[in-house]
Amino acid sequence: MAFADIADRLAAQAIELPSWAFGNSGTRFRVFGTPGTPRTVQEKIADASRVHALTGLAPTVALHIPWDRVDDYAALGRFAADHGLALGTVNSNTFQDDLYKFGSLTHTDEAVRRKAVDHHLECLDIMDQTGSRDLKIWLADGTNYPGQGDIRGRQDRLAESLRLIYDRLGPQQRLVLEYKFFEPAFYHTDVPDWGTSYAQVSALGDRALVCLDTGHHAPGTNIEFIVAQLLRLGKLGSFDFNSRFYADDDLIVGAADPFQLFRILYEVVRGGGYGPDSPVAFMLDQCHNVEDKIPGQIRSVLNVQEMTARALLVDTTALRTAQDEGDVLGANAVLMDAFYTDVRPDLAAWRESRGLPADPVRAYAESGYQRQIAEERVGGAQSGWGA
Amino acid sequence: MAFADIADRLAAQAIELPSWAFGNSGTRFRVFGTPGTPRTVQEKIADASRVHALTGLAPTVALHIPWDRVDDYAALGRFAADHGLALGTVNSNTFQDDLYKFGSLTHTDEAVRRKAVDHHLECLDIMDQTGSRDLKIWLADGTNYPGQGDIRGRQDRLAESLRLIYDRLGPQQRLVLEYKFFEPAFYHTDVPDWGTSYAQVSALGDRALVCLDTGHHAPGTNIEFIVAQLLRLGKLGSFDFNSRFYADDDLIVGAADPFQLFRILYEVVRGGGYGPDSPVAFMLDQCHNVEDKIPGQIRSVLNVQEMTARALLVDTTALRTAQDEGDVLGANAVLMDAFYTDVRPDLAAWRESRGLPADPVRAYAESGYQRQIAEERVGGAQSGWGA
Amino acid sequence: MAFADIADRLAAQAIELPSWAFGNSGTRFRVFGTPGTPRTVQEKIADASRVHALTGLAPTVALHIPWDRVDDYAALGRFAADHGLALGTVNSNTFQDDLYKFGSLTHTDEAVRRKAVDHHLECLDIMDQTGSRDLKIWLADGTNYPGQGDIRGRQDRLAESLRLIYDRLGPQQRLVLEYKFFEPAFYHTDVPDWGTSYAQVSALGDRALVCLDTGHHAPGTNIEFIVAQLLRLGKLGSFDFNSRFYADDDLIVGAADPFQLFRILYEVVRGGGYGPDSPVAFMLDQCHNVEDKIPGQIRSVLNVQEMTARALLVDTTALRTAQDEGDVLGANAVLMDAFYTDVRPDLAAWRESRGLPADPVRAYAESGYQRQIAEERVGGAQSGWGA
Amino acid sequence: MAFADIADRLAAQAIELPSWAFGNSGTRFRVFGTPGTPRTVQEKIADASRVHALTGLAPTVALHIPWDRVDDYAALGRFAADHGLALGTVNSNTFQDDLYKFGSLTHTDEAVRRKAVDHHLECLDIMDQTGSRDLKIWLADGTNYPGQGDIRGRQDRLAESLRLIYDRLGPQQRLVLEYKFFEPAFYHTDVPDWGTSYAQVSALGDRALVCLDTGHHAPGTNIEFIVAQLLRLGKLGSFDFNSRFYADDDLIVGAADPFQLFRILYEVVRGGGYGPDSPVAFMLDQCHNVEDKIPGQIRSVLNVQEMTARALLVDTTALRTAQDEGDVLGANAVLMDAFYTDVRPDLAAWRESRGLPADPVRAYAESGYQRQIAEERVGGAQSGWGA
Repeated sequence: MAFADIADRLAAQAIELPSWAFGNSGTRFRVFGTPGTPRTVQEKIADASRVHALTGLAPTVALHIPWDRVDDYAALGRFAADHGLALGTVNSNTFQDDLYKFGSLTHTDEAVRRKAVDHHLECLDIMDQTGSRDLKIWLADGTNYPGQGDIRGRQDRLAESLRLIYDRLGPQQRLVLEYKFFEPAFYHTDVPDWGTSYAQVSALGDRALVCLDTGHHAPGTNIEFIVAQLLRLGKLGSFDFNSRFYADDDLIVGAADPFQLFRILYEVVRGGGYGPDSPVAFMLDQCHNVEDKIPGQIRSVLNVQEMTARALLVDTTALRTAQDEGDVLGANAVLMDAFYTDVRPDLAAWRESRGLPADPVRAYAESGYQRQIAEERVGGAQSGWGA
Repeated sequence: MAFADIADRLAAQAIELPSWAFGNSGTRFRVFGTPGTPRTVQEKIADASRVHALTGLAPTVALHIPWDRVDDYAALGRFAADHGLALGTVNSNTFQDDLYKFGSLTHTDEAVRRKAVDHHLECLDIMDQTGSRDLKIWLADGTNYPGQGDIRGRQDRLAESLRLIYDRLGPQQRLVLEYKFFEPAFYHTDVPDWGTSYAQVSALGDRALVCLDTGHHAPGTNIEFIVAQLLRLGKLGSFDFNSRFYADDDLIVGAADPFQLFRILYEVVRGGGYGPDSPVAFMLDQCHNVEDKIPGQIRSVLNVQEMTARALLVDTTALRTAQDEGDVLGANAVLMDAFYTDVRPDLAAWRESRGLPADPVRAYAESGYQRQIAEERVGGAQSGWGA
Repeated sequence: MAFADIADRLAAQAIELPSWAFGNSGTRFRVFGTPGTPRTVQEKIADASRVHALTGLAPTVALHIPWDRVDDYAALGRFAADHGLALGTVNSNTFQDDLYKFGSLTHTDEAVRRKAVDHHLECLDIMDQTGSRDLKIWLADGTNYPGQGDIRGRQDRLAESLRLIYDRLGPQQRLVLEYKFFEPAFYHTDVPDWGTSYAQVSALGDRALVCLDTGHHAPGTNIEFIVAQLLRLGKLGSFDFNSRFYADDDLIVGAADPFQLFRILYEVVRGGGYGPDSPVAFMLDQCHNVEDKIPGQIRSVLNVQEMTARALLVDTTALRTAQDEGDVLGANAVLMDAFYTDVRPDLAAWRESRGLPADPVRAYAESGYQRQIAEERVGGAQSGWGA
Repeated sequence: MAFADIADRLAAQAIELPSWAFGNSGTRFRVFGTPGTPRTVQEKIADASRVHALTGLAPTVALHIPWDRVDDYAALGRFAADHGLALGTVNSNTFQDDLYKFGSLTHTDEAVRRKAVDHHLECLDIMDQTGSRDLKIWLADGTNYPGQGDIRGRQDRLAESLRLIYDRLGPQQRLVLEYKFFEPAFYHTDVPDWGTSYAQVSALGDRALVCLDTGHHAPGTNIEFIVAQLLRLGKLGSFDFNSRFYADDDLIVGAADPFQLFRILYEVVRGGGYGPDSPVAFMLDQCHNVEDKIPGQIRSVLNVQEMTARALLVDTTALRTAQDEGDVLGANAVLMDAFYTDVRPDLAAWRESRGLPADPVRAYAESGYQRQIAEERVGGAQSGWGA
């Protein structure tokens, strides 16, 4: 398959950016600040608009509540529109209030659960105003020591709490439940794997789906298998893209294992998860602890685009033939041939044909934007995971 | 809780032995033979009867077809009964025929799938004769290289094949589908995790359940969480007990991480998976590559019994109170107190009160059985995974 | 072996407490505060003195510079002495200054390396005043992306920097170099494994040794093997005890895998690493994110003590015999017999015979100390990893 | 850097083939046979010669004793020479004799150790006749259960045994000691990590070096770091190339994580491990369980060559500049740029310029060799790990 054959399909790609990727992040050991880091959600949106302007790949920005809480979400939507963006997924947060030290939607105390549910209802209110489709729930709930909590009871309470949230969804809204292997809980996590997320959302209804974060699996997990399985079951709602060498490292997508990203995207395409009719949302969820944030996001969406192009280039007819013949090396070679194809020149030309810079990374560097924000954004508190 | 309070509950424990544990096993590097290894299924049953006679814990033996194929299963059942045992779970085998090199129930070739289905129907025929309840399916199906197979298509074919088998189940029979992280396939496995097994058996019906082998998970997986979840979902059918440090090591249960075994058994008890009314079958699935096989099995059932006793000793009232109060250390201490309790003297007395030897391991050593079989079983081909 | 035979050996046990365990800690997602958390190093020492007073196991406190920096270390030493404690290991910190964002002792910039070396020389100055023996170096140095740094060059610069520090050691002082698998760096870490630490300290000289933190290994690593090997090579300097399920979870030692702790301590004893003449320092390095800190430390030293008792109880004669005979199950049984022995009643009696409370955890709870500090320590900034 | 700049450096590449890769292999579950599999070492050499004839990359074949034992090694050498090959590394085998069930060079029984040492002396005798430089020692020694063996004592005996072997080395001969994380031993392995191999060979002398098998590490291990470290220490003797998703899967090199292979080869080049003066031997060690063996080997050497080309293409000047400037994204981009370069067309042209087929895989398929051996090699016992 030639690049010309896939060019149209690439045009439909959209990758949502997380507002928090533009703020500071780090590890428990240290969060390093950088000149120019946004102080407000508006500045985050302004930064995100640079990514989209240069790549055409990132038309929406996800919000995180309460980090991005404002008084007037309609106004925020207009602000985003003025920057060429729309507001996207709303992410809830039940892990930074003292109340949630021992759980949120799973807590033994009904009052705490109620407060956590109410927080999600507030998020849905915000979504009504922003026109967002997806409420994404990632829970930090879990325990650090065996016996600390009742695993079974917590799961039951989780189901009850999710039901209260799900029943409030508007007809165009969806609930996507993210799973994560571990961290910040170190013994057990209440939604640790795709099976748990699948079982929970299946009990809720059609508009509850699974969110797959590529960094949230046990070592050695075959993630593309999960992609294929969830697509088959009709329950893959969205991706949080990033990459990892060890744990939930939240590095730039494709940076740690580009071949894995290729295999994931191949299964997305294979299973009908790519394209205008697909219910699967693509999103980044990364931390730029040591690298520049805006070019980090640019690099990330380009990585997804380049690898999507390679996945689309797979000669599926030849692949199927080799598979059916038990030609192990031949089938593998079909996949590898696409993976090793250097799509970058074609993509550069494709970009230029659409009025985009051939090299968005360079275009950003030459734009002077980074220097400008470093000079302008003086004073105030830089955004981070706390605000 | 005192030992006297749990003694009655221990009486109900039954742990099925795998016939193949008495044969030779090893690694791809070498299978070491040992004097006295059974040549026939009858000799395996005779060995298994020693375990039950000395422990009272292992009243049934699982068969593996074709390894344990005989002409007359009714006669085999009488042979077992004469040795104080019943025949239990029937395990199918679709991994040793050249036909299955690229898959069995998932194969692209309908003729191969048909043959694999027919093998399972033969197993059900055998179960009709042996009176076995459970057909256990563990599949080696998978691929070694990306692209070698179509992950999604294989999953669909698996569903179709399982349907054909499930529909043949008798009213008292069950299908339990085992999952495994990897091996013998090294890129993708068709039933790699509990989520996949759960999704597949849920599509089949009430008598299809998940089999959890304690050695079949990714590093770091919280197995007791899966136990709690599957019990909650009503889909935990059986355990294959063994232990591991690295991969599917198939070591003696409790040998690698006794505390993990304790936590698993605590969740079994907590979730209603233990006792006469529980649908959960306990079974061993181990390889005694370097240690003596019969005492290895004795050690194993004792390990399960001892840890079950500790799990039953947990002061659940105190635990619940500490959990509800957010008393992390207190709740953990309740669990650890039971774990660190030395139940061995009480269990020895309990055994003697039931006409069993206080120390089954020593009783076996002193019985002379090992020397006897070493002397008697001369000539013939020792049993192993091939026969 | 009976408890009476090992009682004397237990008397010699000393486990150093880290001052920072009494401050707040958490994850990148949240650090929860708790009433009564120390604001000063003096309050940390006061808290540590409670642990020693109730257990007799923790006569020294490790300092972390700059978190515990004071004007007058002699005075601090007297303060500790007044509380029944001595000051112990000094831990350096080169991971919280902006300067060290891309490395400290390994940095490409000579000025940064110089500053990092100077920080260690300051630590040695402090050690001269506190009388501490060990300078412990744990480096956060590493990179997040392939290519970000030159792995080889960084290793060479590390060697040069360590040389400058080592050459400044006083005759009674030692340098212990800690290794860690990953975090906060996510692609490569400059001292990731025992082999690297061993190679680096071997190049320095006799007073440079390896520090083994039990939470700093790849999944599946046999830690007791490393203990045995380092003892054999004469290069095991100290332990940082804690436990983990996934990554560097820093949970209470013995909480995640008590059998592993037992095996580690068995190899310590086996290899001459335990006792008054041993050069091996025992220390805790933990985070009490969700549990109370002082009882968390009490629980930890008791766990080490209890497991040391079990390790000392191993019948080494029977073990050796079984090993030499190739009696796999017999040898394993010798070890398991010691592990399953409930040493808690004997230890309670042993404590009482030495004027200590039989149950230090309960004694602490009943002492009212926690309530007292919660009431008294109002205002000021609670200590954490930043101060 | 352009391809023309590196073409000369590629000419020097040589990758040794293992004779056993042409025989059957599999898992403990099943070894599948294939038509045309060699019955003799001569047939293995004939197959290996096809790989070299089509790629120019594989001028030597490694032997495995006793699998490749012959009466006349000089004649075998001439046979190889007639096929355009030389005999290379000799691999010992101490894992298939009943005597070694509980260890070989580490065994408690001096007579067993002696026999194992003698086997290595026999290998050295063979090397004298074949002119081989390297004796490669991979040990299966280890234990399955805690307590089964004395870890420390085994290490000491290993040192003694290795000394006896090392002292017999001829002046041009080397001993390379391979390490492996686990398998076939499941609790402890006597040479489990590079640190142990390094410590043992350092004690022997200059001609004892470490062999790094790319599949023998814990999950998540940064292998290129070990490469850089061993090169720095002057102790990297050889590579066993293969790839893995889970354990020691022995898949085709580059098949599981091509980017990792690139990073490894970059560090090889960076550290002076590549080129005519390098002491580092490149070798494959793989199992072609389900794919055709000869094209599997062809694919493997091509993968190494292609990735070596990419590693050589790295713009080291730009990389160094970006590293020194703390330009994380820029430095990473330099590496990724080389990785994503499609070197295949240039390599095809380069091959043709040297009289080799542009596409060796296709050339092999069209040669008819596979059909020929399938037809000719009828009867006899196919080679495998047992012979």
